Amino acid sequence: MTVEKRILDPKFELADSDTIAAYQLKTLLEILQKTWSTNEFYRAKWQEAGADLSKIKSLADFSERIPTVEKKDFVEDALANPPFGKRLAHGLSLKERSDIYTTSGTSGQGVEVHAQTATELRAMERLYGFLFHWAGLEPGDQTFLTLPITMLGGGRIEYQGAIGFGLNVYPVGNYDANRKLELLNRFRPKALYGSTSYFSHLAAVADRSPPCPSIKVLLTGLEGAGYSYFSRLENQWQAKVADRFGCTQLRTDFMFTCEHGIGVAGRPGMLHSLDPFVLLEVIDPQSGKPVKDGEFGEIVVTSLYHFDNPVVRCRIRDGGVFRKASYCACGRPFGGVEIGTIGRTDDVKKVKGVNIYPQAVDDLMYSFGEVDEYQILLTTSKTNADIAAIKVMPKAGLPAAGYDDFVARLKKDIHKKTGIHFDVELVADLPRSEYKARRWLDQRDR
Amino acid sequence: MTVEKRILDPKFELADSDTIAAYQLKTLLEILQKTWSTNEFYRAKWQEAGADLSKIKSLADFSERIPTVEKKDFVEDALANPPFGKRLAHGLSLKERSDIYTTSGTSGQGVEVHAQTATELRAMERLYGFLFHWAGLEPGDQTFLTLPITMLGGGRIEYQGAIGFGLNVYPVGNYDANRKLELLNRFRPKALYGSTSYFSHLAAVADRSPPCPSIKVLLTGLEGAGYSYFSRLENQWQAKVADRFGCTQLRTDFMFTCEHGIGVAGRPGMLHSLDPFVLLEVIDPQSGKPVKDGEFGEIVVTSLYHFDNPVVRCRIRDGGVFRKASYCACGRPFGGVEIGTIGRTDDVKKVKGVNIYPQAVDDLMYSFGEVDEYQILLTTSKTNADIAAIKVMPKAGLPAAGYDDFVARLKKDIHKKTGIHFDVELVADLPRSEYKARRWLDQRDR
Repeated sequence: MTVEKRILDPKFELADSDTIAAYQLKTLLEILQKTWSTNEFYRAKWQEAGADLSKIKSLADFSERIPTVEKKDFVEDALANPPFGKRLAHGLSLKERSDIYTTSGTSGQGVEVHAQTATELRAMERLYGFLFHWAGLEPGDQTFLTLPITMLGGGRIEYQGAIGFGLNVYPVGNYDANRKLELLNRFRPKALYGSTSYFSHLAAVADRSPPCPSIKVLLTGLEGAGYSYFSRLENQWQAKVADRFGCTQLRTDFMFTCEHGIGVAGRPGMLHSLDPFVLLEVIDPQSGKPVKDGEFGEIVVTSLYHFDNPVVRCRIRDGGVFRKASYCACGRPFGGVEIGTIGRTDDVKKVKGVNIYPQAVDDLMYSFGEVDEYQILLTTSKTNADIAAIKVMPKAGLPAAGYDDFVARLKKDIHKKTGIHFDVELVADLPRSEYKARRWLDQRDR
Repeated sequence: MTVEKRILDPKFELADSDTIAAYQLKTLLEILQKTWSTNEFYRAKWQEAGADLSKIKSLADFSERIPTVEKKDFVEDALANPPFGKRLAHGLSLKERSDIYTTSGTSGQGVEVHAQTATELRAMERLYGFLFHWAGLEPGDQTFLTLPITMLGGGRIEYQGAIGFGLNVYPVGNYDANRKLELLNRFRPKALYGSTSYFSHLAAVADRSPPCPSIKVLLTGLEGAGYSYFSRLENQWQAKVADRFGCTQLRTDFMFTCEHGIGVAGRPGMLHSLDPFVLLEVIDPQSGKPVKDGEFGEIVVTSLYHFDNPVVRCRIRDGGVFRKASYCACGRPFGGVEIGTIGRTDDVKKVKGVNIYPQAVDDLMYSFGEVDEYQILLTTSKTNADIAAIKVMPKAGLPAAGYDDFVARLKKDIHKKTGIHFDVELVADLPRSEYKARRWLDQRDR
């Protein structure tokens, strides 16, 4: 199969890795200097860690000498200097628009506050250009944004990225699924843009297949999903998946699939990090050292375009399997993460003494055409052992005669993949997610 | 009292009326030529009416020769050429972003579709600059947008206008009133931006007065309200009201109060039409002729900045009391409408043979400090006569001893104002509006 190459910015996409690295280092040093002189929050962290900026001559120096920051640091700063913290003081002192985002969660103490200026937003729009261009979209194309626009980053940032690129965005996030389907079939857009599992939900609610034939592109994201789930979405909608990854701490998406999309079952596609704009590190959460190609690690991000609201070595507690640029056939000089491997680093479950990655289970589950939705339930036996069970809602129309065979195959394959035995129960109904799916229930005694 | 003059664009605001009129005519002729050559919808309407563009040499010629259009024309066009109609074909053929809006109402047939290109949106941002600058706001000021962002024009257009000017916009329209109050008191913005009656609702829900002391400006709009209602809002919030007026058909607000705000009780302020951007006509709905200064008429709008999605002589079924530029002490060369007089032209009620303007009743009702909320109920007596009744929810804390006196004064004043007798009943509870208030219930036999 030949794949049409979609290059948006030849200067970066056709460069070699050394050129990109040199550009990163130069930009990084400017960011560090400016941050030192304008941002009390970061300066204090760096002073505390004894970091000396004048000693940083390489990207490796940077990773070794500059400490990471994370959610708890942001929350502490905001509580000590409400409501924005010292971290956001400089950006907000400029007389230009800033967009303010909060993270979700119940009100008050645990909520992070992030911001970016209008200048930073304009720079961010360049990043989204890669997503849309690689996905085969053009300015003027009609796109349904299924996320509501609120104080959360997710939704508002997507909206800004899309209008910055010039898409016709229909903000339908406030409408229920049936109303969305009605509007879809009235206005017949080319792309759907929202969170991965919501598209599956929409397809389940629709009374025809594909739910809207005009849809050619599914802009998935906001949550991890296994390869099989993406593949199933493509079948449900008869459209190509273009996946994205980002985080509120960076206030953008910054890793995208290229024109190779989700790839094929044995060799999934790759989320390409936009290296000229974001310095990506994938580290072993224990040692802090970079992981090797093909290994799972935690994602640490440094923005190379936020000069007034800097993001420097932020641990985001999401991880994935690191891949060098050479992994993808597209030839771009950007590293990244294999699709279908993204998950919270604290989501790895120890069951019967074995580490299990939820995405691996998800991938297996959706490789069975019989599975509509599933839920994993972990409990404790009387003898204090772990019990692992899977509740499966089979697809409507699956003949009851095939149940036993399906359950037997599922049990066998999941044991092969994880090394442990799961009970399997078929159930008539399971909850559907409207936003991010939560499929693991851990009810074990502790 | 001296009022600080806030001039955003001296070229227009300090010009004389003739200069403005000449600018309007020149721009109008360009719009007409371009519309004729690119827009089948308007061309067909004009041809049908026998309008000859070459004969238009003045603004008066324009009003005489070009026919009006209105909602039913747009809906017909969209039904004949779904989903956008011929009217929007040219704008959508350009490879640039267009924002698409629908009007509210139940799905399907009666819903209008409007659009504007990115170029038109950028032009529109200039208009909102006058609102914010006149209201005393600056780029970087924090503003809570209490409207949700959906397919409706109201909310999304406000958002675009605000970010275009450079305000820090908090999109809180999806949160309930208590959550909004919590966020208000956490982030302490300078301005509240939404629909008039919702601010009163927020104040009623708040457990302190003023509900948020940081608020200095209330950007009211989206619905008519009497002078007393604005005055009461200023007291509730200890903030200045800056009112705005617009319509989905024009896809913007285009009349704003100046630094004189709502004025004083005997001489209310004025919504100044931005004459260089919008050609305002206020006409007698029957004769189609312009009304005189101080007379109520229907608003007809022509955009002077929409070149690709033109709006030419659109009847919007909203009216107000026309005022010449000289009405306001600010000295700007812009005509407009007296605040507190805006209402649907089809909202005028014939009760007991007398025409009653709901805004006039509203103004009177809220001139009573005792009134928290009210509702008008029209029914039919056994002898086939109209019965007009007012249900009043008095403010919490009003001593029962004062009830009789209050009701007597209210009955007397409303008879004086309208010429008819209303029954008055005090009730414990009445519905609050979250969006636009609907206070008249007409249950008469027809």
